[in-house]
Amino acid sequence: MKTSFVSDLSTEQAITTFFLVHEKEIRNTRDGKPYLRLELGDRSGTIEARMWDQFEAAAKDVSRDDFVKVEARVQIYRDKPQLSLQKVRRAKPEEVDLADFLPHTKEDVGKLWAQLLEYANSIQNPWLKKLVLAVLADPAIAVRFKRAPAAKVMHHAYLGGLLEHVVGLCGLAKQIAAHYRELDADLLMTVAILHDIGKLEELCYDRAIGYTTEGQLLGHIIMELETVSKAMDAIEGFPPHLKAVVQHLLISHHGQYEFGSPKLPMIREALVFHYLDDMDSKMAAVRAALGAETGEDEWSAYSAALGRKFLKLDAFLKSGGPAANESK
Amino acid sequence: MKTSFVSDLSTEQAITTFFLVHEKEIRNTRDGKPYLRLELGDRSGTIEARMWDQFEAAAKDVSRDDFVKVEARVQIYRDKPQLSLQKVRRAKPEEVDLADFLPHTKEDVGKLWAQLLEYANSIQNPWLKKLVLAVLADPAIAVRFKRAPAAKVMHHAYLGGLLEHVVGLCGLAKQIAAHYRELDADLLMTVAILHDIGKLEELCYDRAIGYTTEGQLLGHIIMELETVSKAMDAIEGFPPHLKAVVQHLLISHHGQYEFGSPKLPMIREALVFHYLDDMDSKMAAVRAALGAETGEDEWSAYSAALGRKFLKLDAFLKSGGPAANESK
Amino acid sequence: MKTSFVSDLSTEQAITTFFLVHEKEIRNTRDGKPYLRLELGDRSGTIEARMWDQFEAAAKDVSRDDFVKVEARVQIYRDKPQLSLQKVRRAKPEEVDLADFLPHTKEDVGKLWAQLLEYANSIQNPWLKKLVLAVLADPAIAVRFKRAPAAKVMHHAYLGGLLEHVVGLCGLAKQIAAHYRELDADLLMTVAILHDIGKLEELCYDRAIGYTTEGQLLGHIIMELETVSKAMDAIEGFPPHLKAVVQHLLISHHGQYEFGSPKLPMIREALVFHYLDDMDSKMAAVRAALGAETGEDEWSAYSAALGRKFLKLDAFLKSGGPAANESK
Amino acid sequence: MKTSFVSDLSTEQAITTFFLVHEKEIRNTRDGKPYLRLELGDRSGTIEARMWDQFEAAAKDVSRDDFVKVEARVQIYRDKPQLSLQKVRRAKPEEVDLADFLPHTKEDVGKLWAQLLEYANSIQNPWLKKLVLAVLADPAIAVRFKRAPAAKVMHHAYLGGLLEHVVGLCGLAKQIAAHYRELDADLLMTVAILHDIGKLEELCYDRAIGYTTEGQLLGHIIMELETVSKAMDAIEGFPPHLKAVVQHLLISHHGQYEFGSPKLPMIREALVFHYLDDMDSKMAAVRAALGAETGEDEWSAYSAALGRKFLKLDAFLKSGGPAANESK
Amino acid sequence: MKTSFVSDLSTEQAITTFFLVHEKEIRNTRDGKPYLRLELGDRSGTIEARMWDQFEAAAKDVSRDDFVKVEARVQIYRDKPQLSLQKVRRAKPEEVDLADFLPHTKEDVGKLWAQLLEYANSIQNPWLKKLVLAVLADPAIAVRFKRAPAAKVMHHAYLGGLLEHVVGLCGLAKQIAAHYRELDADLLMTVAILHDIGKLEELCYDRAIGYTTEGQLLGHIIMELETVSKAMDAIEGFPPHLKAVVQHLLISHHGQYEFGSPKLPMIREALVFHYLDDMDSKMAAVRAALGAETGEDEWSAYSAALGRKFLKLDAFLKSGGPAANESK
Amino acid sequence: MKTSFVSDLSTEQAITTFFLVHEKEIRNTRDGKPYLRLELGDRSGTIEARMWDQFEAAAKDVSRDDFVKVEARVQIYRDKPQLSLQKVRRAKPEEVDLADFLPHTKEDVGKLWAQLLEYANSIQNPWLKKLVLAVLADPAIAVRFKRAPAAKVMHHAYLGGLLEHVVGLCGLAKQIAAHYRELDADLLMTVAILHDIGKLEELCYDRAIGYTTEGQLLGHIIMELETVSKAMDAIEGFPPHLKAVVQHLLISHHGQYEFGSPKLPMIREALVFHYLDDMDSKMAAVRAALGAETGEDEWSAYSAALGRKFLKLDAFLKSGGPAANESK
Repeated sequence: MKTSFVSDLSTEQAITTFFLVHEKEIRNTRDGKPYLRLELGDRSGTIEARMWDQFEAAAKDVSRDDFVKVEARVQIYRDKPQLSLQKVRRAKPEEVDLADFLPHTKEDVGKLWAQLLEYANSIQNPWLKKLVLAVLADPAIAVRFKRAPAAKVMHHAYLGGLLEHVVGLCGLAKQIAAHYRELDADLLMTVAILHDIGKLEELCYDRAIGYTTEGQLLGHIIMELETVSKAMDAIEGFPPHLKAVVQHLLISHHGQYEFGSPKLPMIREALVFHYLDDMDSKMAAVRAALGAETGEDEWSAYSAALGRKFLKLDAFLKSGGPAANESK
Repeated sequence: MKTSFVSDLSTEQAITTFFLVHEKEIRNTRDGKPYLRLELGDRSGTIEARMWDQFEAAAKDVSRDDFVKVEARVQIYRDKPQLSLQKVRRAKPEEVDLADFLPHTKEDVGKLWAQLLEYANSIQNPWLKKLVLAVLADPAIAVRFKRAPAAKVMHHAYLGGLLEHVVGLCGLAKQIAAHYRELDADLLMTVAILHDIGKLEELCYDRAIGYTTEGQLLGHIIMELETVSKAMDAIEGFPPHLKAVVQHLLISHHGQYEFGSPKLPMIREALVFHYLDDMDSKMAAVRAALGAETGEDEWSAYSAALGRKFLKLDAFLKSGGPAANESK
Repeated sequence: MKTSFVSDLSTEQAITTFFLVHEKEIRNTRDGKPYLRLELGDRSGTIEARMWDQFEAAAKDVSRDDFVKVEARVQIYRDKPQLSLQKVRRAKPEEVDLADFLPHTKEDVGKLWAQLLEYANSIQNPWLKKLVLAVLADPAIAVRFKRAPAAKVMHHAYLGGLLEHVVGLCGLAKQIAAHYRELDADLLMTVAILHDIGKLEELCYDRAIGYTTEGQLLGHIIMELETVSKAMDAIEGFPPHLKAVVQHLLISHHGQYEFGSPKLPMIREALVFHYLDDMDSKMAAVRAALGAETGEDEWSAYSAALGRKFLKLDAFLKSGGPAANESK
Repeated sequence: MKTSFVSDLSTEQAITTFFLVHEKEIRNTRDGKPYLRLELGDRSGTIEARMWDQFEAAAKDVSRDDFVKVEARVQIYRDKPQLSLQKVRRAKPEEVDLADFLPHTKEDVGKLWAQLLEYANSIQNPWLKKLVLAVLADPAIAVRFKRAPAAKVMHHAYLGGLLEHVVGLCGLAKQIAAHYRELDADLLMTVAILHDIGKLEELCYDRAIGYTTEGQLLGHIIMELETVSKAMDAIEGFPPHLKAVVQHLLISHHGQYEFGSPKLPMIREALVFHYLDDMDSKMAAVRAALGAETGEDEWSAYSAALGRKFLKLDAFLKSGGPAANESK
Repeated sequence: MKTSFVSDLSTEQAITTFFLVHEKEIRNTRDGKPYLRLELGDRSGTIEARMWDQFEAAAKDVSRDDFVKVEARVQIYRDKPQLSLQKVRRAKPEEVDLADFLPHTKEDVGKLWAQLLEYANSIQNPWLKKLVLAVLADPAIAVRFKRAPAAKVMHHAYLGGLLEHVVGLCGLAKQIAAHYRELDADLLMTVAILHDIGKLEELCYDRAIGYTTEGQLLGHIIMELETVSKAMDAIEGFPPHLKAVVQHLLISHHGQYEFGSPKLPMIREALVFHYLDDMDSKMAAVRAALGAETGEDEWSAYSAALGRKFLKLDAFLKSGGPAANESK
Repeated sequence: MKTSFVSDLSTEQAITTFFLVHEKEIRNTRDGKPYLRLELGDRSGTIEARMWDQFEAAAKDVSRDDFVKVEARVQIYRDKPQLSLQKVRRAKPEEVDLADFLPHTKEDVGKLWAQLLEYANSIQNPWLKKLVLAVLADPAIAVRFKRAPAAKVMHHAYLGGLLEHVVGLCGLAKQIAAHYRELDADLLMTVAILHDIGKLEELCYDRAIGYTTEGQLLGHIIMELETVSKAMDAIEGFPPHLKAVVQHLLISHHGQYEFGSPKLPMIREALVFHYLDDMDSKMAAVRAALGAETGEDEWSAYSAALGRKFLKLDAFLKSGGPAANESK
């Protein structure tokens, strides 16, 4: 069990805990003495570590991307904390809980998954219902869907983030379909559930969130298009025009060419879904920006994902004097 | 009372009814005989009209933008219907119902207005509630709000269209504020109600929908900024920071510089409202494109407002064979 | 057999020949007499036609998109030629040669197809060779490949144009792979052969060149991606990484997001192929612009596909005086 | 009185002078000894400072944004100068001259102000003259106008810079109105004087130049629009169309949407003023770039405000040999 | 001498006057009778003309781009005036005044030229003065400079327009160099005089304003670069660095790549000159837009050159009521 | 002769070799002791060097941009190698081989030059052949052509790189002219040979690759335009229209305004050449990116010149399992 996290270390503290090895190197001091240098991390951050004596066995035992157990002391070097290592060994799989090494959603994944299945079962159109349930019934998909983040950086960038994003969109889709009666609620729900399942393979998130090589070559839109198309082909009698509609909904959901959609939304449901998806992603990005500890008194730090900073509304209203207290 | 509309005229029909004069001219035939040429219109379209004999009195009596009563016969000239006028005189104000000359919403304006007031009264923040009610209580605003279109061409381009758009947005705002708990529901409702009231003066819509000169010089964002700022100044003790927030919500609601917003949304509620407003406008534009009689079997005509055509989903699904019948 | 073409008709000529019906309408003359109005066409252009007497049977017999046999006289109306019809009847399928109604390549399609197969057989990599030959062996594909145009307007917009374009690209691919030794000649040849086969379904070209509804919703990149992916899946043991590479080559071949490529070329062969494809398309567009009869003495007409006019080089050099004769 | 400036410090110098505290921190040395770290600055730059002993009282006494009096010695650490502090205390307001901490114009502010009033008094149109004089007569505005910079970074980024910029523009406006007789000289002068007064509140410049929160939410165009509109409303009988014209001149003066103008210039005077304002800003930015000590022999450093470097013309002409001496 | 102009013709008027032949054609009437159709024009517009009888000799005698003398009667056909020709013959050169066929400046060309020489002589730098005077002394240049328009459509699109534009810029250059003391007045004057002399060859303006083939291939920037470079090479000892500076001023004066400048202004004088040139061109375009007879009561017609309409300021201010009278 | 290169130095190695001085400075240690600090470099990289004792004579003797001979020992300081200098003196010209200090092509420059002349002699058109041979016969051009790089950073950024690029393009031009029979092979060859000769003066590459001041003011397109135009003027009877064509080919070869072409390609050969030049430059940039030692397992490092990373195709195919071995 992991007991200390990078963000909590204090000077001169002695620790015994687990980390992921991000970098490993043998270096020389100025006077030529070799030492082992590691960059270690967990879900809260990364830290430099050095082992000065008897590091040869450790250096052989551990590699980049290994989980390790260390005994060390926290020191300050050039104004930054650093670990001085006494012992390092590779961790056994059963000693490590991956959740300690990657940030994850604060929601209950089991409940989210149950909600998703409920939304899937609420679809009336038999073809679409069959399609969505078939995709979600694939065990490989289900396992990954409960873990995948929604992005590396932009929004919902934590384990379970994709599921949180998708369930949120299902809720929005249901409300909006009720608001605009001309919309086909089933199509909207279908695309809400399936629109990002390509991310299960586009991203890798075993030890850190990144992109797979195939993910970079193809992108999640193309990847999920293949998965969903095969699922439709596997349903006997699936109407070909409905297949083309579903395919269009998937490939157009980024809304613009420059975001990788090879077609603009040309179906009403595709247009609406693009708005909902974009809004929910941006709302999550704002939430992350305002929740971060950086930034100024009344402003978040600049968010590259959003191209601007956001106002800390409560702080600004309060700083305006007592009368403003009533404003919320 | 208007009995015949341009779109319903049939060849050789004799009519006695009212029109708006769009153009007026004296012309000569090829052999030099003068005649009166008018372009007449109502909410359903326009038609050419010619008066060959004894037109001098009529020509003096009527001007462009007058309503006129005519007796005429429908003829075909170069494959287009044309009116051959027997009598023309200026109409009395009490003879004319403006609604016959401008397209208008199919919704009940009285009900829409009641809904709007209900939304306004649901605001909890006392300052914002006072503000919104004060603006709506201005009789000049109320009268125009019940008539104004939301645009000349782009969306809700008919009398009452603005109110329809605003009430729709209030409904969306309420739902979305419930979905994202971090949003300030009162701010969202306030901007939904006030964001387009500058259009009451930016557009003119007495006889046809167009732009006023001031509207072209300033735009509705700047115009409503002045109106709403004065209303806030008139409320004693209105918190100055809250005033800046409301002003920011108004000026940023177009979401991008190139659409005339001098600031990008930098408050969460501003960002969300921009998505809702944009989506509702586009949905109305799609509705208009798909509702029009032009277009192909499976496609709407190209919509300049949307930069594309839209699929007639039902037609396309039906053309795919019997199995597709179940898809809706 | 078709004997007269629209572009060759001369005043007062009497003709008996076949046309395609583009539009059909019953209209009234100014004095109320009904007549039949058709717009007729062949591969050289379109012409208005009117039938004044005893047209009822003909009007029942023929519809839009029918081929018809007509007897008529050429007249001038408002400075444009027009047909005055004496007889009209639907043509029998065996009377009509489609090639008379759509422009087609001047090359020999059989020879082009043989060249294509030769290029396909020259591929060394066994997986890619199997893939390409399997796709070309599909009879549905082969039949359409010999007929399809490469585009509606932009380039090679005539029957057989796609095959002409593809065979040209195979030749370029071979030369360029020899020039840059670091390129994988087989990958380049594979993408040259397969990169546009989605156009077989994106376009319709039975009677006129246009887009299918599915073509508009998905585009040829997405359509051929599905075809080629299935073909790879059908080859037992096809290496999955090679599959991802082929998929990337297909989806990136437009080179830029705004032209519908969801990924930029990130493989050397993808980058080079994009240049070749773009250059060959533009060269064909220039050829069409300079070959057209419009334009000025030393300039082609403005080409929308190219965004400019092109110089008639020979004419310009010759107009410079006798010394310039030697320049070519 | 401030005696030493950051840019003039030399190694081992002992100083007693005033600074502004930019940052304050307690840190630990590698062996755990705490010390006080400050970042101190004046109008010429910033410098690191450390206090190793008996710093507890000082650390309590001073905060970020305080002015402090220090006794210190200049040392070199990692090739950069650093202060070793002996004494630090908060400065009394009367000890500090703000001008030592912010760069300011080299012009005489009193003379500039007198020139501005002269320009204002030269306006012929009685409404515009009344408007401009009323705004300038507001004591809050006058005080700030004599101090405000024109920008944080881009141009005239120093105290008094705004006044310098505005008076320069008044001079240009007068000349250009004489050159183009069709221009209304009074409108041009009015917008020259009023076009940036929103910057008095958009920027803060008490201790360093930055943006206020309201400034970021609204921008100076919107802020001055409210100030000037109120001033017009306060003049009885101010012609409403003239008001709309003045408002248009203010909101369009950035010339393009992407620079925050919600309307493009649609009045001749608005177009011309945009050119003058843009040119004067860019000229000031070039002056700053060429005046800076960075850059190469014949080139200024790259200017982000201008998107390029500028040639040092004299240096380049001189390096071309003796004949070039005559070129200036 | 030309007595009647197209814009002044009235129905049934008999005229004997000169025109330029824009188009010439032999056509057939509906019943097969051939006739001669000409499109004739002068500086005020164009008109259709038909000759029904004995036109064979005329048809042989005249060609496109000839000046002709005609006897004709004005008739109305399809609501547009048309000439019915009785006689047509080619005009003798001495009968025609080109100024009747192309619009020209209202300024006195002789005076403008004298002013230009005065500006040239005011240059202090001996190299630049020698350069400018040498260019203007070339008789081929002087003759064309007094005739050339500044553009085909965008601004100063009339004979003498270039000279008017250049002399205006010299005046501006002088004032601005006095305003910004850091500017080299001689460089600014030099580029003002020489910056558009490539237009003497880029445009053709013998009978109508258009582009030469070389003009389209190279553009005036490249053309004047060659002319001015040769003139500098011809001055013994011309400093090479000064030559590079002059060349840079010429090639950068459009200010942006997309307007055909291969380099952005990187010299202060180049930047300022770009502003002046752009402003003067746009002012002329606004002048033309407001001076045209098209447009609405308070607005000019939409100007493609400016991308917008412009306000008729006086009309708008007057429509605001009596108090507004004082505003000018 | 240079014996050690920066990239090969190992700790504690004692070296005696030559370097280029990039920077020179006298600094003080923390305790006030002065020392000489140099930044030294060769074609493989740069390294810091310090001389602690008796450096005064050396400091006087050597300057920035000098070649020096040093005796030194390699040490590690802050994890980076550094030279501790024992002796430093200026090198004699004959001791230094410039090729040790700038990267250069791996091809044989003599052979490349011979190939270039062969291509030049293959031109059939007598005017173009005369032109190309005249330019290449200029000894100043020939000497520089054999040395110049093709760019500072983007592609072929090494000595001889320009010649390598040009000869490669000549080969492509020959093949493409054979492929597209409508192309004028001589024009294509002419522009291939001449299109970048302005780079001989735009770049400086005596000690490091950079831009000349004239190069920055004018760019190579404008510079070569002057050179080639003069060469054409020097050939008696050179046809003026052919001159304009050659000039157009030169100025349009960047293909787009934003890359510094003042005209878009409007001649077929210009369009094709732009594609070839762009493709060859990008291929060289990809080659450099994939050849560099940076990057990940399956990806090159991000290339700023290309705006993306590129796949290491072989590595990716191999990582896909044994079956993939056959793919190449």
